[in-house]
Amino acid sequence: MPSHFADRLCDAVRSRKTSLIVGLDPVYGRLPAAIKSHRHMNDEFDADAAVDAIFDFCTQTMRIIAPMVPAVKINVAFFEKYLWEGIETYYSLITEADDLGLEVIGDVKRGDIGHTAKLYAAAHLQNPELAGLEDTLAPDAITINGYIGTDGIEPFAEMATKQGKGIFVLVRTSNPSAAEIQDFAGADGQVVYERVAEVVARIGDKPERVGANGYSNIGMVVGGTAPDVTKALRHKYDKAWFLVPGYGSQGATAEDCIRFCKPDGTGALINASRSIIYAYERPQYKEQFGEDWKRCVEQAVIDAKVDLANAMQTLI
Amino acid sequence: MPSHFADRLCDAVRSRKTSLIVGLDPVYGRLPAAIKSHRHMNDEFDADAAVDAIFDFCTQTMRIIAPMVPAVKINVAFFEKYLWEGIETYYSLITEADDLGLEVIGDVKRGDIGHTAKLYAAAHLQNPELAGLEDTLAPDAITINGYIGTDGIEPFAEMATKQGKGIFVLVRTSNPSAAEIQDFAGADGQVVYERVAEVVARIGDKPERVGANGYSNIGMVVGGTAPDVTKALRHKYDKAWFLVPGYGSQGATAEDCIRFCKPDGTGALINASRSIIYAYERPQYKEQFGEDWKRCVEQAVIDAKVDLANAMQTLI
Repeated sequence: MPSHFADRLCDAVRSRKTSLIVGLDPVYGRLPAAIKSHRHMNDEFDADAAVDAIFDFCTQTMRIIAPMVPAVKINVAFFEKYLWEGIETYYSLITEADDLGLEVIGDVKRGDIGHTAKLYAAAHLQNPELAGLEDTLAPDAITINGYIGTDGIEPFAEMATKQGKGIFVLVRTSNPSAAEIQDFAGADGQVVYERVAEVVARIGDKPERVGANGYSNIGMVVGGTAPDVTKALRHKYDKAWFLVPGYGSQGATAEDCIRFCKPDGTGALINASRSIIYAYERPQYKEQFGEDWKRCVEQAVIDAKVDLANAMQTLI
Repeated sequence: MPSHFADRLCDAVRSRKTSLIVGLDPVYGRLPAAIKSHRHMNDEFDADAAVDAIFDFCTQTMRIIAPMVPAVKINVAFFEKYLWEGIETYYSLITEADDLGLEVIGDVKRGDIGHTAKLYAAAHLQNPELAGLEDTLAPDAITINGYIGTDGIEPFAEMATKQGKGIFVLVRTSNPSAAEIQDFAGADGQVVYERVAEVVARIGDKPERVGANGYSNIGMVVGGTAPDVTKALRHKYDKAWFLVPGYGSQGATAEDCIRFCKPDGTGALINASRSIIYAYERPQYKEQFGEDWKRCVEQAVIDAKVDLANAMQTLI
């Protein structure tokens, strides 16, 4: 019997004393010079060299952050760019993250009708049992697009539950035109993202999906850039973990994001990607640590944790 | 200057005299015995053997259908099941399809916010320029989930337009619970899928996206199982190609689907997957052609084309 994903998240957030998670969105051009100048990694236009550099950078970054944060979110789009070579790298990083004790969220945003959803769920949530792929691990959770409705989400929920894993369904995203469809107002006063949240909560509320800490393994993605949305959702869906993008580079503040947490600090994973992994590009760290990119990343994590902890204090 | 995707579709539909396209949803367990018994392909639990069998089956199937239909839709979920090995096979099949003169639709249903959408668009619509991947082709078009709104769709539209390719954005799907979110009624009488269609049409109506035949390269996915929806959308969006799933195994009739075509037969791609590629499981073909699975597939395409042509006659 595998452990419950939502309980593992509670433990991880408590032991690291933060809801901060780090997103890996690696772009070759922005990697540290120390990596790009390696003899076998110095050609952006060679697929092998590029994925080797990205793997090296992500692995080193995860070694720095693993003692400090509960989870890592790996955005598969940055790997699909390198087709099958990138996908192999994506799965190698999941194994590395698991070895480091990080919970791994595969940011894949898959979604399709029933039969196809089952296949996506098997591909992304089940460790493969095929000869040739047997040492490969699937992530602990993935992100899902729920526009298809219940029978496009349920196959992912079933597989996740069976495997002790989780899903986070897109409810309200953090991009400028998110309101166009997601805030579309219904005849009954409800808007579309609230409707989606209701569907997701119904799927997540099944007793076998709720862990010992009272949280479901079926969570929601809600952008930190829409703080007015936050309080209502947190209050209404007390079993949900929220995955909150937008902190840092996308402009959401610590105060905006921390409202997704309950007073004990659980209930939300607040993601920062570029502001952490490219910390060595930021003047405040560059001036202090020079070419030591790892020290920059480490300090950016520390600073973000303090920022969130301070915001939590003002909230309580 | 690449040719215009929507114009290529018009030519392909006219030359094959049908709007029928075939969907490749290959599952190892359902492949013909003649393929599964090959010495190197007879182990379902070996990744190499399984993808080799799937590649062989899909290639042979495409050789049969290529002279008869304008396009093939390849569902990437069935390949992601085999992780990077499956993705390599998916891209190999795109090259095969291109060699056979088929337009190729990658059914990938990707979607994300701006920066990530750009990366997905590069991965799925641009032929890679990287050493090690340089002979690989991206599909002619892909399917997109537009829940994110305009700035999640526009990066795909831009890349597609630049590359002479297309996208089909999910508007109304064919699954039982599609109505849950997609038919959510707005305060102004519009429902969600109509809103999405409006957003997609606005993106597709830009002059540089409309080809010589008056069609845009930005199309819509609308299930054939909701025929009441059809007429209004066809009438309202005369520049749109509709990609219509649901014909055959999912229960939409030829009459339901053909309404998406204009009187000259252009304007819709009507997809049948399992009813064609597994025709050798259907008693009507099995009795007639026995173990000759290729003859079964061929006859199923012929019958489906006649079925759609007859439905077109009753419509005119």
